Amino acid sequence: MTLAEYLTAQQHLVEQALDRNVPPESCEPEVIHKAMRYSLFAGGKRIRPVLCIAAAEAVCDAPIGVENAACALELIHTYSLIHDDLPALDNDDLRRGRPTCHKVFGEAMAILAGDSLLTRAFEVLSALPHIDDARKVRLVFELAAAAGDKGGMIAGQVHDLEGEQQHPTAHLLDRIHRAKTGALLRASVRMGAIYAGADDHELAALTRYGEHIGLAFQIVDDLLDVEQSSEQLGKTAGKDAEQHKITFPAVYGLERSHEMAEEERLAAHTALQPFDARAIRLRQLADLIVQRTA
Amino acid sequence: MTLAEYLTAQQHLVEQALDRNVPPESCEPEVIHKAMRYSLFAGGKRIRPVLCIAAAEAVCDAPIGVENAACALELIHTYSLIHDDLPALDNDDLRRGRPTCHKVFGEAMAILAGDSLLTRAFEVLSALPHIDDARKVRLVFELAAAAGDKGGMIAGQVHDLEGEQQHPTAHLLDRIHRAKTGALLRASVRMGAIYAGADDHELAALTRYGEHIGLAFQIVDDLLDVEQSSEQLGKTAGKDAEQHKITFPAVYGLERSHEMAEEERLAAHTALQPFDARAIRLRQLADLIVQRTA
Repeated sequence: MTLAEYLTAQQHLVEQALDRNVPPESCEPEVIHKAMRYSLFAGGKRIRPVLCIAAAEAVCDAPIGVENAACALELIHTYSLIHDDLPALDNDDLRRGRPTCHKVFGEAMAILAGDSLLTRAFEVLSALPHIDDARKVRLVFELAAAAGDKGGMIAGQVHDLEGEQQHPTAHLLDRIHRAKTGALLRASVRMGAIYAGADDHELAALTRYGEHIGLAFQIVDDLLDVEQSSEQLGKTAGKDAEQHKITFPAVYGLERSHEMAEEERLAAHTALQPFDARAIRLRQLADLIVQRTA
Repeated sequence: MTLAEYLTAQQHLVEQALDRNVPPESCEPEVIHKAMRYSLFAGGKRIRPVLCIAAAEAVCDAPIGVENAACALELIHTYSLIHDDLPALDNDDLRRGRPTCHKVFGEAMAILAGDSLLTRAFEVLSALPHIDDARKVRLVFELAAAAGDKGGMIAGQVHDLEGEQQHPTAHLLDRIHRAKTGALLRASVRMGAIYAGADDHELAALTRYGEHIGLAFQIVDDLLDVEQSSEQLGKTAGKDAEQHKITFPAVYGLERSHEMAEEERLAAHTALQPFDARAIRLRQLADLIVQRTA
């Protein structure tokens, strides 16, 4: 199976899991489920769920039902996009080439749809059918901490908002990316590992991998915002500079940022050495994250 | 110990648990923890945590650490108040006699503070120190479902927003209150019961109790909005009528609403018959909910 075929197959599995784990549009109250699904099924690349599944596969051959745990990551990711796009935050009208949730459903419903997706992520983890309660509890803790206010995604969002008024430094940049994007990508890999029953050594190695690809992902994201058009990205390009965001190109320049992304890609490969052939998809995903164009 | 003394003691226990389970204001990023704590420590009555603790005590004599589970309910309740007060939703400037979170910290930080409290509730439950993983998983599921988009608090909030454009009927009213306030109050009682290891019969009886006091609570809340001043309530009075909310007084009139609250109080007492003296606090709390003036 080529990587493209693998991605298509995993994305399909994740779409199905999302569809199972979120009430249908016909479920009362209809408007909230329409708003949740509008943002959830908007052509996302499902990079976090796919990382979760691939990490589980690096630990055990056939991690049954891991796509259900994986879809909790996408629920969190999607909620964060909906809330980030609100007028009070990034005030974005375009996301994945379509009007943002609040442009279609109004601000009140966008706030509540985000809240619902966040809440549902934990309901899904607590109801996972194929693993024991000890693993479910670890997954809930992992996701809540990664999404939260203490070094997690929300902390990163706050640092990011504060950063708009500050001089861009390597220290501030490191703090923002580790929390804002890094924590959830790291958790994606760790949750797959935990789901599949990784031992401490495997979990430590996969955590290092997750940290390196998390950093690589953010560097490339910052680069794309500078180097690509809105049309190519499916979201408004050039917003980082306009909003005086602290980004890798702003701190290190374009050339050094490209080098850093490549260094992180190689470090991610190194972290996977204990895994041999089982980690082929994780290796390919590290390459893909650095080489992507959107 | 009188009820007043009991309430003071339990509220103190809950305040301490909240303080332990939420990062201090000095924790980076400081502003989000200030915003979370501003709304969390605003003189709330802690009715949901106290119901949770009292339900646990009805099942077993000394439910060690139940105040930690109880405080997850207050985290969810507080997040819902912060988001409900936002300009896009109820647009309220006053809460518990103080400016609302977004008036003090701005809309962006209020949205993120709500998200953080919601996320932290599940982190707290997954890290409970005194119970086994099976109970933790049940608590996470219970809280997520009660707070969620399918018959839970968010569903109620959506029905409530939609109701502003609709003719008030008993059917709509029932649907709103069951979800908006009822689900979390019911979950408060059930979570205490689950924490303490209730058997199926005990859980069923306490669930009935929770449903009756949930209904009573909402009826009285609607009555207070009509009959009390903003000063007495610590929040803007008379907003329901102004916003054409579907309320018990709007559907049934004041007199019948008072009768209904009393009927629910008595039904709550009946549900507690299997518990004898152990449920004294739950009985007193049912009375308090109906007789309160704020």
